[in-house]
Amino acid sequence: MISMQKKEAYTGFTNKKYKPKETDFVAEFRVEPARGVSFKTSAEAIAGESSVGTWTDVCTSVPRIRKTLAPTVVYSNPKTKTIRIAYPGDLFEEGNIPQLMSSIAGNVFGMKIVNNLRLEDINFPDFYIKSFKGPAFGIPGIRSFTGVEDRPLVGTIIKPKLGLNEKEHAKAAYNAWLGGCDIVKDDENLSSMKFNNFEKRIKQTLKMRNTCEKETGEVKIYMPNVTAPYKEMVRRAKFVREHGGDYMMVDVLTVGWSALQELRNENLGLIIHAHRAGHAAFTRSHRHGISMLLIAKLCRLIGVDQLHIGAIVGKMEGGKREVQFIDQEVEKQLIEASPADHVLKEDWLDLKPVFAVASGGVHPGKIPAMMKYMGNDIIIQAGGGVHGHPNGSIAGAKAMRQAVSATMHGVSLEDFSKANKELAQALKKWKGI
Amino acid sequence: MISMQKKEAYTGFTNKKYKPKETDFVAEFRVEPARGVSFKTSAEAIAGESSVGTWTDVCTSVPRIRKTLAPTVVYSNPKTKTIRIAYPGDLFEEGNIPQLMSSIAGNVFGMKIVNNLRLEDINFPDFYIKSFKGPAFGIPGIRSFTGVEDRPLVGTIIKPKLGLNEKEHAKAAYNAWLGGCDIVKDDENLSSMKFNNFEKRIKQTLKMRNTCEKETGEVKIYMPNVTAPYKEMVRRAKFVREHGGDYMMVDVLTVGWSALQELRNENLGLIIHAHRAGHAAFTRSHRHGISMLLIAKLCRLIGVDQLHIGAIVGKMEGGKREVQFIDQEVEKQLIEASPADHVLKEDWLDLKPVFAVASGGVHPGKIPAMMKYMGNDIIIQAGGGVHGHPNGSIAGAKAMRQAVSATMHGVSLEDFSKANKELAQALKKWKGI
Repeated sequence: MISMQKKEAYTGFTNKKYKPKETDFVAEFRVEPARGVSFKTSAEAIAGESSVGTWTDVCTSVPRIRKTLAPTVVYSNPKTKTIRIAYPGDLFEEGNIPQLMSSIAGNVFGMKIVNNLRLEDINFPDFYIKSFKGPAFGIPGIRSFTGVEDRPLVGTIIKPKLGLNEKEHAKAAYNAWLGGCDIVKDDENLSSMKFNNFEKRIKQTLKMRNTCEKETGEVKIYMPNVTAPYKEMVRRAKFVREHGGDYMMVDVLTVGWSALQELRNENLGLIIHAHRAGHAAFTRSHRHGISMLLIAKLCRLIGVDQLHIGAIVGKMEGGKREVQFIDQEVEKQLIEASPADHVLKEDWLDLKPVFAVASGGVHPGKIPAMMKYMGNDIIIQAGGGVHGHPNGSIAGAKAMRQAVSATMHGVSLEDFSKANKELAQALKKWKGI
Repeated sequence: MISMQKKEAYTGFTNKKYKPKETDFVAEFRVEPARGVSFKTSAEAIAGESSVGTWTDVCTSVPRIRKTLAPTVVYSNPKTKTIRIAYPGDLFEEGNIPQLMSSIAGNVFGMKIVNNLRLEDINFPDFYIKSFKGPAFGIPGIRSFTGVEDRPLVGTIIKPKLGLNEKEHAKAAYNAWLGGCDIVKDDENLSSMKFNNFEKRIKQTLKMRNTCEKETGEVKIYMPNVTAPYKEMVRRAKFVREHGGDYMMVDVLTVGWSALQELRNENLGLIIHAHRAGHAAFTRSHRHGISMLLIAKLCRLIGVDQLHIGAIVGKMEGGKREVQFIDQEVEKQLIEASPADHVLKEDWLDLKPVFAVASGGVHPGKIPAMMKYMGNDIIIQAGGGVHGHPNGSIAGAKAMRQAVSATMHGVSLEDFSKANKELAQALKKWKGI
């Protein structure tokens, strides 16, 4: 079954002396060949299938194609199972992420010639990066909008995930803001439900936001989940804007690249919060699928302003080192290569940095570690960790802010909690968790 | 790290005596709990995280939610690693696939409480199926459009995948049609390129189609790849229609659910061909991710008319039994449960059947097996298997049609090839492959 792919058409792509051009894309894969297939053969089949090749030689080919559009396997190391392929820039349409993914992250995952294949990273040439808008706001825009200059932003997700009606939702949001949350976010599976209608929820929650902003003097953010078929998503986003909202939240992976790109292109003037629900279906295995690092890069190219990248310490998978590299990738301008981590160099040119969001099983006791690993340019979100506080959501939000303050001042949570009872109660409830 | 999830909030969802209501969604998962976590605990955490739960108890909850919206683990079998969860219908928004996937196929894949998790199938209640359009044409519409009543349709993909200019592309298409192909399809990574502009390609290729229809008296189909950001995709589709095209081809997974749904909702009057590039990043492992069966069901709900489901015999993975179940799922009205294969029952009501497409490493010698396993309601596509013919694309297409004719008449390819030299040449070139 495998032999057919050892054909002329997939071969001859290796040239380790080739130096990628400035207009080339360079992709790094981790490859496990099928039984009886050499590492070189599988590497060249991947290069071919993701660009100009097929499983057999064809009469329709012309020599020009091999000369101008053929990919080159520039690095391959069977010990680390790593290959790098340089692709001529003309293989890709500018500003079209689905086309990029159909090429480099398309058929290759299903080829019998490999047992497992993981796409780790793509280094994008400048011309391609320039064909995208990047974030409209990003970290500087959000810092300026909130007036919060240096501390992490603190957010909550309304819990339970589903079931509250519009009024209960707005009330929970109000309490979280009042206690000190900067941000209140819908959950990823809350859109417009029979028990909680989108329009009603937005109106009531934004009304509570206005009240709370007056009472606290702080800027308060509500991130409504607009996830839906494209036109309905845009209609909901415009509804949010018309009712005084500043943000929209999108489940970027279940919505998909085509709609996400267009939503950004609409320039609605709303800050885009990107939730990554579903990513771990293909990012979790380190042997197969696509890295979260690459997904994060695509989100920066397209131009989301905030992106969930993992909390390191919470209920979700994602190792410390992996999350730190993703954090860097979305927030820095120049990325250095780290071969051992399958991270390629990147120059983000003038694309704004994306605000990293850490969420999932977070509570106040986790905050010092999160800030240590991820810095201050982070949005710390806790759902259960706010609304699960023994004294309720207001106390829960207070405890979160207290933990951030303590860490900003270099004081341990234990010491800080002596004069801050909400923090003390939170630490007690979630001790050892 | 795992202990935190053994909390009250995720528990109490099991009730094996519960009989799912007519409005419930039933999902089947394959679960591998993390070390030290019981099967029951992990099952309930999955049920909670995909609906109303979180990792800790929250003060914002109200008893009403547990009563009306809680999921129920109705089946769990640690030996087969299988669980089934019934979800109340109100947890899902009608006509919103991204919301469905953010719930049932969202955060759950990343939970530390499981090492691997695969979503196998979802049985949709009638009210939900009725909220989708399904295919506008489907098998009956395509049979009627082509006038081909009972044999498989034969298609080719223009090869090389990338590199031909518009004129070469149109010429290769002409030859394939002339030889007997019903269908010519763009490759999945061909959109609008510097070396092959979308508009020019469409105009020239459709012109060749018109010529060839006159010459052969057969209906000839061109499937242009419109994969792009949403509005550009719609613009390209309209361009195709304005120039006399009947089809559009979309890479449904790299485009994503939100744009695909809206493209269907646009009712452009074009038949939709769905390519599944990228699926194997999350469908290939049988231990983690999402089954291709479910992806195929979502495509039928949304309403693509043709869908790649695997060739069984070609260069791409996908076992015989798996592909046969997918074939049934998209083409039949009533699906019987097959517990050993993780297939749930389904009643597709009046949603039209989707034409299954078999592609990837196909050549004439494979056709008898494909028709045996997949029946006559199948679109057999060969790229290299047509353009790789020793005597060129015309001969390649002839050989494909000869193989279909032979099989329709119950004659072996060897016998049929005695009077059909193109078939004989194809069998010789690809012998043993």
